[in-house]
Amino acid sequence: MRSYRKELWFDVPTRRAFVHITPHVEKCLEESGIREGLALVNAMHITASVFINDNEEGLHQDYERWLEELAPHEPLTRYRHNRTGEDNGDAHLKRQVMGREVVVAVTDGKLDFGPWERIFYGEFDGRRKKRVLVKIIGE
Amino acid sequence: MRSYRKELWFDVPTRRAFVHITPHVEKCLEESGIREGLALVNAMHITASVFINDNEEGLHQDYERWLEELAPHEPLTRYRHNRTGEDNGDAHLKRQVMGREVVVAVTDGKLDFGPWERIFYGEFDGRRKKRVLVKIIGE
Amino acid sequence: MRSYRKELWFDVPTRRAFVHITPHVEKCLEESGIREGLALVNAMHITASVFINDNEEGLHQDYERWLEELAPHEPLTRYRHNRTGEDNGDAHLKRQVMGREVVVAVTDGKLDFGPWERIFYGEFDGRRKKRVLVKIIGE
Repeated sequence: MRSYRKELWFDVPTRRAFVHITPHVEKCLEESGIREGLALVNAMHITASVFINDNEEGLHQDYERWLEELAPHEPLTRYRHNRTGEDNGDAHLKRQVMGREVVVAVTDGKLDFGPWERIFYGEFDGRRKKRVLVKIIGE
Repeated sequence: MRSYRKELWFDVPTRRAFVHITPHVEKCLEESGIREGLALVNAMHITASVFINDNEEGLHQDYERWLEELAPHEPLTRYRHNRTGEDNGDAHLKRQVMGREVVVAVTDGKLDFGPWERIFYGEFDGRRKKRVLVKIIGE
Repeated sequence: MRSYRKELWFDVPTRRAFVHITPHVEKCLEESGIREGLALVNAMHITASVFINDNEEGLHQDYERWLEELAPHEPLTRYRHNRTGEDNGDAHLKRQVMGREVVVAVTDGKLDFGPWERIFYGEFDGRRKKRVLVKIIGE
């Protein structure tokens, strides 16, 4: 069994954003030389997500609006977590809806995707450097 | 390390439905000959889910009603994604609540499940052929 | 490839609670002797979650309140599932928001975590013995 590990760093200039990271993960897979196995891609921070969906700007706007409905950023007093001095209570909730990680099959040296599957980094508390972990195991 | 891959095809006649797929995944595991490892089961489409819960019809009706509350199908104008000509904006949101994939332990040649765990394909934009990927790695 | 399996048992005295289980999973990893691979940690019950987030009490209170808003426990008649004689319809929905499982990278014999990542067992229908499965594969 072989294993590969890499951190991808992001510094999103806004509080919230969705960043397309499929090309970065594909590069990792190529570097790994692994042909058959599993690739784990996860946010290393608890106010961010990694998820798979469509690379379509309108959909990302829908996600933004919907997540704000489900877990509004304001008023900050809505969240007990913010009593710690943070202002990111909402981000911890939004991240649970969108998920921490994806596990992707590796087949014949490629990410084994359906036609529209793309990987995104979902930032819910940006304006600072944060990381995604790519771990691939296989042969 | 051994690996196994299979696509399961579905053509759900309604827009939304939950399909019990545990027997299909068990058959894959048997075909694979793998005794210890991990099984990944994921929707290959971004308007569908694979998840684990109870095989109970009332619960599935609860999921249907609840997901419609969280992300209603209509009005179609609710979703910017539908401006692309699609009518499945809601399906992309529902899929995030229910999840893309499950990873199941394989122990002694069986899916290592608790007493009520069953795998479902959750369709949120059906009436066409769509796929689930089963990838198993181990020994 | 090596594999390791262990069940962690919980008997939460209240209906709902969040239990910090990172130390238990770290002990499993140490026992396994695995240095590189993947660790799967999943609820074996369908009214409970395993998820990764912050070990902060105020945040856990936020999750509790938010999940009750999204899928209230009462009235029990809200859920068709409860017609089976159960009273845990809400728990099956809450569990989908928080997720069934996490997959964690194992690197150099450690859980490969960002600075604040901790693993929690989320109980939504407690007051009885229930299990979490830890399965680790690698080398």
